[in-house]
Amino acid sequence: MKILALDSSGLVAGVAVIQDEIMLASYTINYKKTHSQTLLPMLEELSKMIELDMETIDAIAVAAGPGSFTGLRIGSATAKGLGLALHKPIVEIGTVEAIAYQLYGVEKIICPMLDARRNQVYTGLYTFESMDGKSAFRTLMEQCAVSVEELIDKVNETGKQVIFLGDGVPVYEAVIKEQTKVPYEFAPAYCNRQNAGALGVLACDYFKKKKFVAASEHKPEYLRMSQAERERLEKEEKKQ
Amino acid sequence: MKILALDSSGLVAGVAVIQDEIMLASYTINYKKTHSQTLLPMLEELSKMIELDMETIDAIAVAAGPGSFTGLRIGSATAKGLGLALHKPIVEIGTVEAIAYQLYGVEKIICPMLDARRNQVYTGLYTFESMDGKSAFRTLMEQCAVSVEELIDKVNETGKQVIFLGDGVPVYEAVIKEQTKVPYEFAPAYCNRQNAGALGVLACDYFKKKKFVAASEHKPEYLRMSQAERERLEKEEKKQ
Repeated sequence: MKILALDSSGLVAGVAVIQDEIMLASYTINYKKTHSQTLLPMLEELSKMIELDMETIDAIAVAAGPGSFTGLRIGSATAKGLGLALHKPIVEIGTVEAIAYQLYGVEKIICPMLDARRNQVYTGLYTFESMDGKSAFRTLMEQCAVSVEELIDKVNETGKQVIFLGDGVPVYEAVIKEQTKVPYEFAPAYCNRQNAGALGVLACDYFKKKKFVAASEHKPEYLRMSQAERERLEKEEKKQ
Repeated sequence: MKILALDSSGLVAGVAVIQDEIMLASYTINYKKTHSQTLLPMLEELSKMIELDMETIDAIAVAAGPGSFTGLRIGSATAKGLGLALHKPIVEIGTVEAIAYQLYGVEKIICPMLDARRNQVYTGLYTFESMDGKSAFRTLMEQCAVSVEELIDKVNETGKQVIFLGDGVPVYEAVIKEQTKVPYEFAPAYCNRQNAGALGVLACDYFKKKKFVAASEHKPEYLRMSQAERERLEKEEKKQ
């Protein structure tokens, strides 16, 4: 099985190609450029390097949200365009789930935290449980948008050690330090943001379980309304 | 602190740039090309993408062995050349240690296994211990070249769950399955080979502890004699 994975849900642009037990290539950029300047050039560069015949991939995996609205749209448009042209299905992976999944085998609580602005974070709670020596990925709280305070209450309720990661960490570091009552730590630089390789491996698992959609059906999951939609709604409500 | 990390100790070519808590870029290729065709072009490409001014890096980290002799020489020559030109020190990181370090926060035994040919593997045993919630990296057995059977005996002696990773795993899978008595698993594709990002983060830690050398002093650590050296020695011994 060969999966092309794309993640542009945050500041990070990530492209990876997974073939069975091997990551053939992975390219990650965390820089202020816009994803329209990074994602496709990165894919092109990496494809040349591994002489990738796009016809040979089985599916395109994409970080399908939540995240930056523009970022998600660029990722989804890219995945969709490639999927339609190549007649390949799309594996939609929750952004938060994919970020958590990179901490393979970690038995603490894994808590990704993406800055969602307006004092909220996109988050979820995950862990790996060891079953007969095999690490099994578990979702303890599905991805959602909540206030940092509410999230930290939930983390405290688990009573367990926790690893925080994601671009919400530097934004809410002071709140985390003040309110977290369980032992906690922050994931280091090589595993604290979006990771297209981990997304691709998770997508292999989804693909085997037939969890994919036709390219024409794919839509990102924003989890919240965009600022423009919210403002229009507020205006309309005022009119009534 | 800004570290440029290079790893060409195996089939994987990896380049990463770490700046404090952020991985600015990471590029990994696991393909049959030789590292002289990959490593510098990848660095050039990635540097353009993040507008990297090479003068701003503090040190160059390199997977300093063991590994493929040719791969190590290309990595070391590249690091050394850059170091000499830029007047930057070299942080030498043990290849096996860096591979283990990518499984951040894993409290099982971490056992990288690189195919060293002649029925040996380059290996070591590592784990992360949680101290007040912080994951502390521990070396249980320093990197060395041993037979697979001897390694698995050591793993069995620990009595603990183990994660195997590295390019030795597919080569010795049958032996592992037959002889491992503790619960075990194999790391998935996104974290089962060399990882320049993890190497770079580990190098930040080394750099802070002043564990680096001048570029002129850097030499890879092969751990064993090369085939050519071995054959010469055997010939000379026969003559005596």
